Amino acid sequence: MHMTAEILAVGTEILLGNITNTNSKYLAGRLADLGITVLHQSVVGDNRERLSDSVRTALGRSDILITTGGLGPTGDDITRETVSEVLGLTLRSDRNSVERMKRYFARSGRTMTLNNLKQAMLPEGAEIFDNDFGTAPGCVVEKDGRTVVMLPGPPREMTPMFEKCAVPYLSRFSDSVIKSINLRVFGIPESDIQARLDDLMQGESPTLSPYAKEGEVLLRVTAKAADGDTALGICRPVAEEIKRRLGDCCYGEDVDSLQQVVVSALTDAGKKVSAAESCTGGLFCKRITDIPGASSVFDCGVVSYSNDIKASVLGVNPKTLDAFGAVSSQTACEMAEGVRRLAGANFGVGITGIAGPDGGTEEKPVGLVYAAASDGKNCYVRRLMLGHGGSERAHIRMLSSSNALDMVRRLTLGLPQPPDAQAVPVIPRRTDTVL
Amino acid sequence: MHMTAEILAVGTEILLGNITNTNSKYLAGRLADLGITVLHQSVVGDNRERLSDSVRTALGRSDILITTGGLGPTGDDITRETVSEVLGLTLRSDRNSVERMKRYFARSGRTMTLNNLKQAMLPEGAEIFDNDFGTAPGCVVEKDGRTVVMLPGPPREMTPMFEKCAVPYLSRFSDSVIKSINLRVFGIPESDIQARLDDLMQGESPTLSPYAKEGEVLLRVTAKAADGDTALGICRPVAEEIKRRLGDCCYGEDVDSLQQVVVSALTDAGKKVSAAESCTGGLFCKRITDIPGASSVFDCGVVSYSNDIKASVLGVNPKTLDAFGAVSSQTACEMAEGVRRLAGANFGVGITGIAGPDGGTEEKPVGLVYAAASDGKNCYVRRLMLGHGGSERAHIRMLSSSNALDMVRRLTLGLPQPPDAQAVPVIPRRTDTVL
Repeated sequence: MHMTAEILAVGTEILLGNITNTNSKYLAGRLADLGITVLHQSVVGDNRERLSDSVRTALGRSDILITTGGLGPTGDDITRETVSEVLGLTLRSDRNSVERMKRYFARSGRTMTLNNLKQAMLPEGAEIFDNDFGTAPGCVVEKDGRTVVMLPGPPREMTPMFEKCAVPYLSRFSDSVIKSINLRVFGIPESDIQARLDDLMQGESPTLSPYAKEGEVLLRVTAKAADGDTALGICRPVAEEIKRRLGDCCYGEDVDSLQQVVVSALTDAGKKVSAAESCTGGLFCKRITDIPGASSVFDCGVVSYSNDIKASVLGVNPKTLDAFGAVSSQTACEMAEGVRRLAGANFGVGITGIAGPDGGTEEKPVGLVYAAASDGKNCYVRRLMLGHGGSERAHIRMLSSSNALDMVRRLTLGLPQPPDAQAVPVIPRRTDTVL
Repeated sequence: MHMTAEILAVGTEILLGNITNTNSKYLAGRLADLGITVLHQSVVGDNRERLSDSVRTALGRSDILITTGGLGPTGDDITRETVSEVLGLTLRSDRNSVERMKRYFARSGRTMTLNNLKQAMLPEGAEIFDNDFGTAPGCVVEKDGRTVVMLPGPPREMTPMFEKCAVPYLSRFSDSVIKSINLRVFGIPESDIQARLDDLMQGESPTLSPYAKEGEVLLRVTAKAADGDTALGICRPVAEEIKRRLGDCCYGEDVDSLQQVVVSALTDAGKKVSAAESCTGGLFCKRITDIPGASSVFDCGVVSYSNDIKASVLGVNPKTLDAFGAVSSQTACEMAEGVRRLAGANFGVGITGIAGPDGGTEEKPVGLVYAAASDGKNCYVRRLMLGHGGSERAHIRMLSSSNALDMVRRLTLGLPQPPDAQAVPVIPRRTDTVL
């Protein structure tokens, strides 16, 4: 039994480009996990005729149709009525959904208007999906060998409903599962990775696909099998071979982010990091503190956006600033060591550079960034050329903070720094001698 | 003449949910601007039969088809061939595209492999769109009263090509333009805005649509007319009426973000802000420094993630921390005033709270945040209850930083703080007396 599905997003605001259709991406990924093949995704507005046509087309070519949106209380919300009409089913008021809606309004202290009752009108024979985060229930209904799942549009309502109600229902349609191992790589360009893993990318089971993320690469090893353990067993040897070839640039397996790996590594090592940021303006600290529990490994960051603050708060020597400028390896190192001492932390990070769009010169162009990481004995510093010119401020800032995170990861795990990193011995206290 | 268009994204990685289809959103919005109505969006994989079917369906119901993706050099890239086949056109090698590709490879120091030449094979009679950011050219071709535009998949190649080549081409298909005025609102819940603007939302020309953003609302006033000035003239009175009704909670017109407005206001006033962050962990500073030119209004931020750092770096009185805790209005005020003095800035911000998912108590639950802003004479502090429970760390942090930005906007522009803000007189220097 192999089932095909398609996803139909209903809503004029998606059609007009006012909002991004993240629901379809989410559902496509989850259906793949369930071993259900998605062959089409489409978007249609809040228009009865075109929605009818889209539903008919979908039911003509796919076993399962999943709709998102159009379940609300207003006149524009027509998914329930239209799908029922196409299927030849009558709408009936679902008493439990009415009760839940009443309680929902009571809890939030608002009055329930009559048009809300429309949301409880669901096709006869449908299995109702309770909405734990809003008023509109969803449902699944089967007719003539086709299955239609209707989900609300807001992702905060749709996602938990899909997981809690639709996944158990849809699992019965699949006799196989697809599992992946996701490896994250930082510090090797995508083209190099392609070259190094070319033979593995030709494989059919498992498949290996690279996805370029901002400044890094996600490698997904995927296999299909009767059960999850078998599928993962097929993935495992290729995942291990990738790790062997890419070495310590492969920073994690099935992890969310570089910062998550850094916080975990610091936690395991019982060490703390602190950060002094210039061009990244708080982004490094923000990324570290994105991770719950960061407080056990991080307690101090300084955004020093001027020379005065670099000197007065971080203790960067004014002579260093005069001689080499704020954007220099020397300043980056003094910032890193300065914040490390200020915080009493094991490691200190210093980031200084030119994020643009203005402020670049021939000698120090936009995209030039120095990232330093000190452990109190040595300060490792890298000169980075990031971005591709003018207006990529956000990209330059992101890559700067990622490179600094990677340097902290390497310090914490005792891995060597990248080959272009310079190691500068730390002078025990602040003196007039430039590092 | 009123033309309809549809957008077809080609690519298995979109179909499988590996990447979000941002191209379709972008194109839908831009086509609306051009007065071309988009009635359908769809996604199909790199499969010849299904792509043929999708192209035929689209040409059967829309005047214009815009495809993205599938123009690359690999065997999976089949858009050119498939569209040409459906249209009954022959592919021909475009000499100029071959030359451009050769130069592109020469510039990047790579060798051009033979399969790249496939990308220059374009339908006879097509107008070629040069790709300034990659190798695959796009094109537009007309046949039997239908127009097909083919664009590359990577957004960094697609967007500039669309703007430079497709927009001038498509403009001839429209005798009207659609223009919008976008108003940004912070500090009024969406449901209240709906209630206050209900009559305006019933209008047909201009239309008024609210879009909930994270913690704020975007109000879009839109009209269609023969030219842009006329369309904007239709929007203007409604935009002004909205501003009158929502007052200083409407923080900007056609602006990108709250932080952009704050940096502009500070620049105009010649004032500087500094920030001390606990639960937001650098996000406030990051948002301020997202804006180019922030260095003229911001030079110091401190992320104080522990009591020790609050006391040692910011000068928060340890007795305050003992008596009221780190999450308190008193601590928020001392952080704000402490960083203001440290930085020598006009304004200081202090943010402290519980972003979760752990660390909440009955008395101080997850989502409790104090945001303070000091001008050296008074410190304004707000007690906020943000998020809706457990796992919304990112949301709580975002709203915390937005509220602090709004307080700085109000301080800078001389507007009153929100009614729930307490004003606490600032004690000139640090003493043992708790604020």
